Amino acid sequence: MSIAEEQGTTTKGTLYGVGVGPGDPELITLKALRVIRDVPVLAWPAPLEGESMARTIAADHLDGHHKEIPIRMPMEVARFPAQQVYDTAAVEIAAELDKGHDVAVLCEGDPFFYGSFMYLFGRIAEDYPVQVVPGVSSLMATAAAIGSPLASRNDVMTVMPGPIEEDLLERRLTQVESAAIIKVGRHLPKIRRVIERLDLMNEARYISHATMENQVVSSLSEVDLEKAPYFSMILVHKRGEAWK
Amino acid sequence: MSIAEEQGTTTKGTLYGVGVGPGDPELITLKALRVIRDVPVLAWPAPLEGESMARTIAADHLDGHHKEIPIRMPMEVARFPAQQVYDTAAVEIAAELDKGHDVAVLCEGDPFFYGSFMYLFGRIAEDYPVQVVPGVSSLMATAAAIGSPLASRNDVMTVMPGPIEEDLLERRLTQVESAAIIKVGRHLPKIRRVIERLDLMNEARYISHATMENQVVSSLSEVDLEKAPYFSMILVHKRGEAWK
Repeated sequence: MSIAEEQGTTTKGTLYGVGVGPGDPELITLKALRVIRDVPVLAWPAPLEGESMARTIAADHLDGHHKEIPIRMPMEVARFPAQQVYDTAAVEIAAELDKGHDVAVLCEGDPFFYGSFMYLFGRIAEDYPVQVVPGVSSLMATAAAIGSPLASRNDVMTVMPGPIEEDLLERRLTQVESAAIIKVGRHLPKIRRVIERLDLMNEARYISHATMENQVVSSLSEVDLEKAPYFSMILVHKRGEAWK
Repeated sequence: MSIAEEQGTTTKGTLYGVGVGPGDPELITLKALRVIRDVPVLAWPAPLEGESMARTIAADHLDGHHKEIPIRMPMEVARFPAQQVYDTAAVEIAAELDKGHDVAVLCEGDPFFYGSFMYLFGRIAEDYPVQVVPGVSSLMATAAAIGSPLASRNDVMTVMPGPIEEDLLERRLTQVESAAIIKVGRHLPKIRRVIERLDLMNEARYISHATMENQVVSSLSEVDLEKAPYFSMILVHKRGEAWK
């Protein structure tokens, strides 16, 4: 029992959104490790069945002292009424914060870069203190794995989620020097169609599971159109080797 | 002397581009620390006089065993014939790689996200093995410091360097849900003009020195137009609190 609890004047706990990096457990930061070690409660997203990627990344640093709150839902949230899952998780997390317990939500990559953390953030930030520990994003990890700069000098770079409409994707790709298309998954046939139409096949690289043991890097022409996982990415850099 | 050197068949060393994160020394990764510990030679960018930010971030982990190669130039490279500096540094680094010594270049943020590492990469990657250790980018660190998501759901997000032309900046800002304008520096008056014209002042936040002790976060209307440092950033998120 904390001093605050003994005095009956419990201070609210802090919610931490902790980026644990893109997959390689070595790409976690010292700050993420410190926060994870210090909090009594962890929450983590996971599929309906099976392991949480974010928890797996941090697993070597967990010593069994945490209460853990799983947040389970299908990988492709768009197909699913996810609001209720976040509502339930937010209530459970808030109950811990009310007791004065800090809670760390483990987030793949970076919490604020297209991360599901923001759905908890939106439900909790008005009533409780929130801090975000930025992490190595899959965007930077992908460029490192491919061995090619994301952007340089005065390049304009655009990040586009795979689900956006085909004509919008085509217009934006036409306009920029560098682009990352994220959340590729089942949208790969559409994305490949656009890239072929713009004659950018040679400038495009496909990657899935960046920095993990099952990482795949390939040219776009060699990818099975039906088998791209949700967490795959396509990088297009028109200036090619112009950084030399 | 290594076995290879004894046998007169020296294997080339590897060049590592090591992201050390945005400024807070706790935002360095375990992998960056391991590579730094294991290599015999470090190189780091620095201003003509004074300390290297990248080296300062890693300083607590340096034990004096490294040979160090400073790469000194003015902060705003565009004003300066930088090519010769990189040519000289590449020759010095290549001489170490030829001896079989691995060399780690310390990079603020992430090496491949608008980093000066790519100028060394372009000079060395054809002849020597190169590996990049991705780091926490100032982009993600800035969003964490501001306490507001960079992008979510199907947002299109664009990154624009401050030096691009005013009309291009305006067109791109019109088109996207979320934007980061990096390398603000002396381009702030132009950038603010565009943001005012598009009526986005309430959606814009200014930050400099993210995660460092001298971090500044403010609304754009409160920033001194003449005093923005080169490493400052403006985030614009049109959907505001739409992640709730």
